[in-house]
Amino acid sequence: MDNEQLTYPGSRRIYVPGTLHPQVKVAMREVELEDSLFPDGSTEKNAPVRVYDCSGPWGDPDFHGDAQKGLPALRAEWIAARGDTAADADGALVAADVKTPPTQRAYALRGIVTPEMEYVAIRENLGRESAFKAVYDKFPSAKSRPAEAQAVLDELGTGMPRPSELEAQPGFSPQSLAHRADLDFRHLSGTSARMPALYTPEYVRDEIAAGRALIPANINHPEAEPMIIGRNFFCKINANIGNSAISSNLEEEVEKLRWAIHWGADTVMDLSTGKNIHETREWILRNSPVPIGTVPVYQALAKCSGRVDALSWPIFRDTLIEHARQGVDYVTIHAGLLERFVPHTARRATGIVSRGGSIIAKWMMLNKQENFFYTHWDEICDILAAYDVAISIGDGLRPGSIADANDFAQLAELEVQGELTRTAWAKGVQVMNEGPGHVPLHLIPENMRKQLEWCAEAPFYTLGPLATDIAPGYDHITGAIGGSIIAQRGCAMLCYVTRKEHLGLPDREDVREGVVTYKLAAHAADLAKGHPAAQLRDNALAKARFEFRWNDQFNLSLDPERARQYHDLTLPHSNAKKAHFCSMCGPDFCAMKLSQEIREIY
Amino acid sequence: MDNEQLTYPGSRRIYVPGTLHPQVKVAMREVELEDSLFPDGSTEKNAPVRVYDCSGPWGDPDFHGDAQKGLPALRAEWIAARGDTAADADGALVAADVKTPPTQRAYALRGIVTPEMEYVAIRENLGRESAFKAVYDKFPSAKSRPAEAQAVLDELGTGMPRPSELEAQPGFSPQSLAHRADLDFRHLSGTSARMPALYTPEYVRDEIAAGRALIPANINHPEAEPMIIGRNFFCKINANIGNSAISSNLEEEVEKLRWAIHWGADTVMDLSTGKNIHETREWILRNSPVPIGTVPVYQALAKCSGRVDALSWPIFRDTLIEHARQGVDYVTIHAGLLERFVPHTARRATGIVSRGGSIIAKWMMLNKQENFFYTHWDEICDILAAYDVAISIGDGLRPGSIADANDFAQLAELEVQGELTRTAWAKGVQVMNEGPGHVPLHLIPENMRKQLEWCAEAPFYTLGPLATDIAPGYDHITGAIGGSIIAQRGCAMLCYVTRKEHLGLPDREDVREGVVTYKLAAHAADLAKGHPAAQLRDNALAKARFEFRWNDQFNLSLDPERARQYHDLTLPHSNAKKAHFCSMCGPDFCAMKLSQEIREIY
Repeated sequence: MDNEQLTYPGSRRIYVPGTLHPQVKVAMREVELEDSLFPDGSTEKNAPVRVYDCSGPWGDPDFHGDAQKGLPALRAEWIAARGDTAADADGALVAADVKTPPTQRAYALRGIVTPEMEYVAIRENLGRESAFKAVYDKFPSAKSRPAEAQAVLDELGTGMPRPSELEAQPGFSPQSLAHRADLDFRHLSGTSARMPALYTPEYVRDEIAAGRALIPANINHPEAEPMIIGRNFFCKINANIGNSAISSNLEEEVEKLRWAIHWGADTVMDLSTGKNIHETREWILRNSPVPIGTVPVYQALAKCSGRVDALSWPIFRDTLIEHARQGVDYVTIHAGLLERFVPHTARRATGIVSRGGSIIAKWMMLNKQENFFYTHWDEICDILAAYDVAISIGDGLRPGSIADANDFAQLAELEVQGELTRTAWAKGVQVMNEGPGHVPLHLIPENMRKQLEWCAEAPFYTLGPLATDIAPGYDHITGAIGGSIIAQRGCAMLCYVTRKEHLGLPDREDVREGVVTYKLAAHAADLAKGHPAAQLRDNALAKARFEFRWNDQFNLSLDPERARQYHDLTLPHSNAKKAHFCSMCGPDFCAMKLSQEIREIY
Repeated sequence: MDNEQLTYPGSRRIYVPGTLHPQVKVAMREVELEDSLFPDGSTEKNAPVRVYDCSGPWGDPDFHGDAQKGLPALRAEWIAARGDTAADADGALVAADVKTPPTQRAYALRGIVTPEMEYVAIRENLGRESAFKAVYDKFPSAKSRPAEAQAVLDELGTGMPRPSELEAQPGFSPQSLAHRADLDFRHLSGTSARMPALYTPEYVRDEIAAGRALIPANINHPEAEPMIIGRNFFCKINANIGNSAISSNLEEEVEKLRWAIHWGADTVMDLSTGKNIHETREWILRNSPVPIGTVPVYQALAKCSGRVDALSWPIFRDTLIEHARQGVDYVTIHAGLLERFVPHTARRATGIVSRGGSIIAKWMMLNKQENFFYTHWDEICDILAAYDVAISIGDGLRPGSIADANDFAQLAELEVQGELTRTAWAKGVQVMNEGPGHVPLHLIPENMRKQLEWCAEAPFYTLGPLATDIAPGYDHITGAIGGSIIAQRGCAMLCYVTRKEHLGLPDREDVREGVVTYKLAAHAADLAKGHPAAQLRDNALAKARFEFRWNDQFNLSLDPERARQYHDLTLPHSNAKKAHFCSMCGPDFCAMKLSQEIREIY
């Protein structure tokens, strides 16, 4: 498996260099397209399409690493250059001075643009600068712009600002686009997102300083490529891996990591509860180009042999430091679940369904004390700040069924999440908030609105939400439906749900199906919230489809292998890839073919 | 295959009799549940859950029919008893008098409640009367109702009216519920639906008379069980079958029909374009307990050997009559695509993607004449009215890509669909309107609003809509996302999309995956629009899940076979079905188990 190269057909790996920080080289995948072929025999070039790439060095055909050695330490020099960290006795980095935490938030608040910030700005633009500016260079003035040019602009993407809106803004000129971080898009209906025409490092810095976004990047995880989580950027997705007492082993988990990031997981959570938790995590971290999240209480409880009565703050604190020193980029801590909320779950349809939530709830019941995550929040934040571990404030009382959605227990915890968010920010910690769960469609907007309001616009990170309870075996889809809607409204990251959810442990194919499903859900939301780079890929794929460029259609899709496989099941011959019809309608009834004839006339 | 019995585990078929029309026996499936087992050893019965059943006699273990003989003529006597039809020379029924068309709409307008109307009222209630009334019988007055009773009511379903809202309505008493067709639910956010607490035959009649709903039920398809399409009822789903020039045969198509209705297709469209179109359809109709839709122009063009220049009104008219005489319940006709709209598609990203639309567009270009469906609309409606064939006004200019969504061509046709709707209604014809297609999430509400406004609330029937173009191989999911949202907003029926969409012809497993996916999307919308019977199944499944009644959890799901299979992959032993933990967390970390312990204390 270590030698299995996971790459995409018709694609090449490119690296886009930084300007402020020339050492920054942002990995992207470029899908190369065939020429358009017209009925008169003429041809036209199609520009390659750049797509977001989570696979890191594993997706670079020129990288010949090996999982035993781990990945190169991409960020080691950037971290060292800041001169604010020191190695402890065992070589782990930690803040040299607790007053200046080495967090992206602390830098942003001081006005510093880090290499990490420039990395994500370039990453979010996806090479769209050129496509966008090409139109403007051709038609610099709105007054001289013919209707056709306007149509071209409109076709460039739903997320594109209409020129009238752009030019109404004082000081606008196409040439200055790259420097206009404050240039807003039109505000699309149904979303709380507002994005600039082009991302700049300064815009990224400002979003992080405002708390609306975070770059999970532990100083002890230099292998990670920077990525940003915030509603004014691409919606991200997380995939869970991790062994349990029942099943799974270390090799499988690392295979799942590489597999998950190949298909597009932006972060990965290691939820191991079985044996060798530390070693599993070490292996995952050293091989992961994406941020790794954990739920430290799982390991803390394992240290107590599963006995909640033996759990204590010191055991948890030591476990948290262990995670921080290893390089975990964000941790889930269920600090918002207060003692007085627990009785409110007793009459729920499905009680407490969060593992972490039920552990701390039981601890509070046994000890008749307040949640120790809550009472030790300041100390927790100090630890996190010293390593730039981001906090993902858990939702221990998330609803586990449609019947429990948006109930008192859930919303009471959300309010405390807001309080904890502000405290963590004050310590320089980067923050996001976790959310449900099972929520029917009509209650999702209320949940999103309250999170934005009560948690001061900190990024929301939800599991699903699952829009119905009645489809076990298809819960990747019930979750993608809810996920799309909450992401459109402003949720920054979706935790995937596999089709095995509620039933069993996901295998390799389940991870693929789950990641791709959430990727398409997040993308549907990106279109709807107007991410400026989102629609170019849809447009390129639609054009390839209309022109019967089958290979391009496959290669531009989220899962080229499956698209090709499904096509070949019906039309296996290689010349069918050039056929000007497809298997659904056959040659006599092909709508696309007839439609192309219409175009020849008008 | 004819002998293969397609049934669900742990379920039995029941028939609920009518009151106004005692000969009406409404088929439902009842899922029987195990007892709840509490830690102290006590048990509690769980009431069986009634679910909507589309499978007709094929799903009744006591039915021993055979596809060669076809299904019993359930509605033959009801039709005959109305005395307004006569057999033509070849035995097909037709209106005895053109002035009194034998359509459900004509009856509704005359104030008549047909057996078909009573059938669908009972079908939509799903035995919920008893569950709902049980709560009210226990606590007849809101004033004496303790908080616990209020909580129980809330848990009974999101769609349930809050007692305060119910009782604020003059004349309300719990005992009169069954007669209160005008009793509105609270209006849930984000939907245009308003449903009564209980469906009555009179409510159904009024919805049909208003044009907000239809019962597709050709007088020559007496085998069909009545079902209703309208936004104030369950959202329905359609599955397409049909052979093409490339592939598929008659046996496969009928197998797909039985398979599709087993999984929950409410209607089936036969889109055959290959050989033996007439015989394929005859076989499908005689074996179908669900309404069958067709696109007659496909066969008309086949009669012209695929040459659009040979197509003409007389050929189409004869084909339409052929479909009507055979028993087709609804037909798609692309009458709203006017000649002047065609040039507006030339600069689209994906032109015209509707097969029927591209055929008539090409005909108009070749003949330089207006769409003959439009110019012969009155004659078309007269034919449809004579057999109670419902019209599904096609959307020949639906967008085939995100880039083309809600463009001029699409909306121009939608406006004409509204005009045609009114004309058809005036002729007594039952009407629905077809819609897109590919639409990004933020443009779906606008599309739905305009359809309701311009088409006078006639039911909307959409294909998807697909929320992104970039996921071929997963388009059942991109379509389910858009479908859920448009159904929540008021779309009455979703046409399924399989994962082979854009790529190839669906096989048996693709049909299953597609139907179940759309079923869950429609159900998510039913929850969100407040269908009073929707949430009971979620609640029953959630309770089974919380109590580790694994068999009940499987049996209550949309696809019990898959749920069980996924579970058994991880925990294959039969005693795992009684285990108080599941494979994801293992026994030490089980949140549900911990949560049950909390319940024992509070």
